[in-house]
Amino acid sequence: MTGTEIYSILQKVRSQKPVVHHLTNWVTIYDCANVVKVFGASPVMAHAPQEAAEMASIASALVLNIGTLTVDFIESMKIAAKSANKKGIPVVLDVCGAGATKLRDDKCFELLNETRVDIIKGNASEVARIAGESVNTKGVDSTEISKDPAEVAKFLAMERKCVVVITGKEDVVSDGSRVLRVRNGNEMMSHVVGTGCMATSVIGTFAAVEKDLVKAAAAGLCCYEIAAEIAVTSAGGPGTFKDKMFDAIFTLGADSVEKMRKVEG
Amino acid sequence: MTGTEIYSILQKVRSQKPVVHHLTNWVTIYDCANVVKVFGASPVMAHAPQEAAEMASIASALVLNIGTLTVDFIESMKIAAKSANKKGIPVVLDVCGAGATKLRDDKCFELLNETRVDIIKGNASEVARIAGESVNTKGVDSTEISKDPAEVAKFLAMERKCVVVITGKEDVVSDGSRVLRVRNGNEMMSHVVGTGCMATSVIGTFAAVEKDLVKAAAAGLCCYEIAAEIAVTSAGGPGTFKDKMFDAIFTLGADSVEKMRKVEG
Amino acid sequence: MTGTEIYSILQKVRSQKPVVHHLTNWVTIYDCANVVKVFGASPVMAHAPQEAAEMASIASALVLNIGTLTVDFIESMKIAAKSANKKGIPVVLDVCGAGATKLRDDKCFELLNETRVDIIKGNASEVARIAGESVNTKGVDSTEISKDPAEVAKFLAMERKCVVVITGKEDVVSDGSRVLRVRNGNEMMSHVVGTGCMATSVIGTFAAVEKDLVKAAAAGLCCYEIAAEIAVTSAGGPGTFKDKMFDAIFTLGADSVEKMRKVEG
Repeated sequence: MTGTEIYSILQKVRSQKPVVHHLTNWVTIYDCANVVKVFGASPVMAHAPQEAAEMASIASALVLNIGTLTVDFIESMKIAAKSANKKGIPVVLDVCGAGATKLRDDKCFELLNETRVDIIKGNASEVARIAGESVNTKGVDSTEISKDPAEVAKFLAMERKCVVVITGKEDVVSDGSRVLRVRNGNEMMSHVVGTGCMATSVIGTFAAVEKDLVKAAAAGLCCYEIAAEIAVTSAGGPGTFKDKMFDAIFTLGADSVEKMRKVEG
Repeated sequence: MTGTEIYSILQKVRSQKPVVHHLTNWVTIYDCANVVKVFGASPVMAHAPQEAAEMASIASALVLNIGTLTVDFIESMKIAAKSANKKGIPVVLDVCGAGATKLRDDKCFELLNETRVDIIKGNASEVARIAGESVNTKGVDSTEISKDPAEVAKFLAMERKCVVVITGKEDVVSDGSRVLRVRNGNEMMSHVVGTGCMATSVIGTFAAVEKDLVKAAAAGLCCYEIAAEIAVTSAGGPGTFKDKMFDAIFTLGADSVEKMRKVEG
Repeated sequence: MTGTEIYSILQKVRSQKPVVHHLTNWVTIYDCANVVKVFGASPVMAHAPQEAAEMASIASALVLNIGTLTVDFIESMKIAAKSANKKGIPVVLDVCGAGATKLRDDKCFELLNETRVDIIKGNASEVARIAGESVNTKGVDSTEISKDPAEVAKFLAMERKCVVVITGKEDVVSDGSRVLRVRNGNEMMSHVVGTGCMATSVIGTFAAVEKDLVKAAAAGLCCYEIAAEIAVTSAGGPGTFKDKMFDAIFTLGADSVEKMRKVEG
């Protein structure tokens, strides 16, 4: 993708200010909301089964994250996702912790089978598990997988007829035929809780304004990770890094996107 | 209000260190607790129906916020509010997201009808909805309303026999006869998630020590927003802004309150 | 404890990167996860009854915190604790707010009677309550107690056959015979929400890699509080302090531990 393409999607987020509905995890819920806000969009979190459908119907994208799932919470996710499907807005699912417990695997498959998920997102071991691989996991932190992430993403995208995003040192975005790779970001992101969850919210935010979901996801990740690169230059560690990343997202300009972007394919 | 009046309420918060009981939303719960703490008071969050009444009975104010409501959570709010009513401590209700879904509207009206709420707080479109207007909402972010906010606040305050606070570029505080306007604060506050929720917690904190709830609300908003004005001068964006606001609240002195206050009426 | 001993446990955390499973409170859940992460370990939060046991079984320590308890949540804690007991990993319980309501007291005693808790942690009034004293509490903030905290800790440690940690200006760690005192830290910690909850997560993290739980707890508190001492020197107040503390934890070196440690007994 060119810098102009990426920046134009960012500018659509800033001018359209889409409402991005979340049913996300309780650990990182604030950061998920805040990253959407500093990108210029409007986050809303609502999980009561009595309002999940109605809230999804006024949104432009729906973000689901199973990080602190319960059985009831997943039922609310299904209600919201069906409403989003009906309205035709993109649904993004972060398969956070897939592979760590049977409940997580089962509920991911239920969501994928009973609703239409437009973008599946996770780290390599989580997505591999959803693609049917047997993987070792370490709670919610990523572990090595034996296959090429791009192949896993392509396979799952074809199987589920959706876009698949695998984040890591290099992010892979695929719809089964195209594969985009985002090589921005830095190691400091792995020392802060919530950078993965925030990435999912960013993907949802960009998908709210751009119909080509492969490009939306790649552009969102690229902007987010460029901000991380800017932030780390003046951060004293992972604590100050996160707030500086929010600052950098808020002030991110066309020049930085043009010069710093590393999106291939 | 004079600077001396405002600062004296702030000093009462700092010396009395009131316990402020919250049943608030899960997105901003940390910031709500922390803003109370840095003002020098003692936040406590407790929502189990078995302890909500007992916790309210040891507190000096109760803050309710429906931002991530569920049916059960509202029932706990009613238990806590009835306990607070019995003890005679002020109850503040943030009608967060009113107008966005039927559930939110219904539950706000239930709380207002079944318990005594002393201060209703929201942005213009939320409060207008509670005052019976038909409004367009955008999730939890404020939208334009056709009427003068001061008139809406006065009307609702008279109807509900309570104090009404509408926050925005200019905040309006009314008990139906008096109208105070707070013109402090800055635009950066609108780029950070949770500044509205924190404002409600601040109002609850000041109401815990000052019986004139109109003055309590206006003084709290004024101090909070002056801290925001101080913070923005050295912030690099919305990320670093919030922590600097906490710093500025903690160190807020009589001089700044005297020189910077913009409270009229 | 010598600086070498303390630092060697810190280095074990960093090299082994243990998974620390939490069922903690919703106010400080992010900070609890993040403090574990910046120490180099891997936090995971999972409370669904269907996965609590399985998640505990892949962890190296379990941290329980009743700060925002509900009856159901305590049941999940019991499931997780029994799984941890079976696996033989340490269980740390923060008796947050004990003494404030009957529910909190009752549920602490249930957890202690129905599962094996290896480390009980709280402030002076909370732990005194669990030791059977009649105490005045102020929500979740500590209040004065009439007895010597070291005696209370020793008594409870013998009664419950576990390690007891009482945090305060001076922290006391006892297994009923030994008493270690940690005199690091500073007053700024008391002006930020979550420093107590984070201390519990740090104790769990160090207990995950060090079998002598008295030394694990003291070493964890010492490192955490040295970081607070480093952070406060450049902080403008409680807002910027917390992020700088995360930075200081992440970069904490052997020299600082050696020179700054204040652990006695």
